[in-house]
Amino acid sequence: MFYLLDIIGTMAFAMSGALTAMNKKMDPFGVFIIAFVTALGGGTLRDVMIGNTPVGWMKDLNGVYAIILAFLLAFIFRNRFDKLRTSLFVFDTIGLGVFTLIGIQKGIDIHLHPVICIAVGTMTACFGGVIRDILCNEIPVIFRKEIYATICIIGGIIFFLLKKLNFEDDIIYLMTSSIIIIIRLMAVKFKWSLKPIVNKS
Amino acid sequence: MFYLLDIIGTMAFAMSGALTAMNKKMDPFGVFIIAFVTALGGGTLRDVMIGNTPVGWMKDLNGVYAIILAFLLAFIFRNRFDKLRTSLFVFDTIGLGVFTLIGIQKGIDIHLHPVICIAVGTMTACFGGVIRDILCNEIPVIFRKEIYATICIIGGIIFFLLKKLNFEDDIIYLMTSSIIIIIRLMAVKFKWSLKPIVNKS
Amino acid sequence: MFYLLDIIGTMAFAMSGALTAMNKKMDPFGVFIIAFVTALGGGTLRDVMIGNTPVGWMKDLNGVYAIILAFLLAFIFRNRFDKLRTSLFVFDTIGLGVFTLIGIQKGIDIHLHPVICIAVGTMTACFGGVIRDILCNEIPVIFRKEIYATICIIGGIIFFLLKKLNFEDDIIYLMTSSIIIIIRLMAVKFKWSLKPIVNKS
Repeated sequence: MFYLLDIIGTMAFAMSGALTAMNKKMDPFGVFIIAFVTALGGGTLRDVMIGNTPVGWMKDLNGVYAIILAFLLAFIFRNRFDKLRTSLFVFDTIGLGVFTLIGIQKGIDIHLHPVICIAVGTMTACFGGVIRDILCNEIPVIFRKEIYATICIIGGIIFFLLKKLNFEDDIIYLMTSSIIIIIRLMAVKFKWSLKPIVNKS
Repeated sequence: MFYLLDIIGTMAFAMSGALTAMNKKMDPFGVFIIAFVTALGGGTLRDVMIGNTPVGWMKDLNGVYAIILAFLLAFIFRNRFDKLRTSLFVFDTIGLGVFTLIGIQKGIDIHLHPVICIAVGTMTACFGGVIRDILCNEIPVIFRKEIYATICIIGGIIFFLLKKLNFEDDIIYLMTSSIIIIIRLMAVKFKWSLKPIVNKS
Repeated sequence: MFYLLDIIGTMAFAMSGALTAMNKKMDPFGVFIIAFVTALGGGTLRDVMIGNTPVGWMKDLNGVYAIILAFLLAFIFRNRFDKLRTSLFVFDTIGLGVFTLIGIQKGIDIHLHPVICIAVGTMTACFGGVIRDILCNEIPVIFRKEIYATICIIGGIIFFLLKKLNFEDDIIYLMTSSIIIIIRLMAVKFKWSLKPIVNKS
């Protein structure tokens, strides 16, 4: 079940990456790479930084196949993205919750401090998008207004609070990912965003 | 022989990187770093992702010395690059073939799946240029029109087809690198390039 | 003492990163991440490339706490940076010296060649700023005119000369960092900078 959600999230991230790359007029190779890094870049960065090498997608190919499939779907439906936008957004939000949890768990597995686990979870969920934006020559959108990363951090804090309260792992997983998904949906509905820090010097 | 081709490729990549950096009006340190990452960035990214650390150039210094030499040559001949363009292009193409093979072999050495080995080979040959373009604040050229990476992927597929047919390693190496080099020369001669994926949504 | 200087340097780097991010109109998350990578990005890149994983800041949290503190200070004093500029510059310069030494020592610890140790030291001190500039969508300033990296390289050469002459480690540390700091102060006072390499082809 969880693994299935992981694959759904991966495909949603890859398709949104492919869309961004097409808007930048990239060629098929470029579109594929941007789809790839949007989906797996965060986890790759995490694996490299915690020393889990060869990185995940080199050992379990399902992520790669999911991205190839997402790339083909994005290509076929490239003129009908407007109609897909809502379902894509829902899947993307599922991915946000699942990726954060996977990252946190990887941190726990190697006994990192909770603060670092939350950082690792946020990195897993959000830094694929950062690498995508850098490759597209933009300042990363989550550094400017997107509330994306903040939601992962809140989710991470709730995760460890629940753990402190001795909830079962399954419950913690379900509640944390639900909270991340709900806040994300509300953030978009009510147009929550972070404001720039203004300085006058 | 193969090792010599590796060094020639490294120097060609470094010189073309140095040229790009000079066109961006960088200072000597910037020119050197761009030369360095163009030549060794792909292999460094590969080593970090497969867990071959300290990365290659930290253990075998010949790559570093080759880049220092290439940097000096690029500096001395900086106003005569027009005349060097053809030989530089030939050496660069040799590098493309050799680097792809080295990457594939590194993947095989640690028992990665053929699909991943091809990805690793392509990364080795092409992602130095990607890092160069990012550091120069450009969208990577191989994401926009260059057929570069596609040639490495084709070469990789041929590599594993020949392996499946039980050819000897030496033959496989020679044929794969020759095919990559020939397609690359034809691609430039006949101006083959990838077209952007156009979407209307 | 040395550890204290490390923390002071980390905070100075983080504050200058935060300032850059505010000037780019980033939101609080963006400002925090830019502060983080400016301070710890160079060391993280080094750890990943030499295989010291999980990377340093995941194991010793004092760096992370120092950055959180620096981020808060930068936020509180965001309109008074003009008055802080001089002290910030002095601390930043201390960081330059200390980070270079830490990097060189990490290289020595795993028996890398002196040339590579100097590269590792320079990377530790300077590449946080490179990552900061990439995330801010700028060509890295140290590739264009800043004499920053050159000073680290000179410091590294002096380090190994003194080692060759059998000075004690404490003396080598003190002299190398002092020389880096003095050259840096002089570079700013006398407006030393590197010139672009001009080519006409």
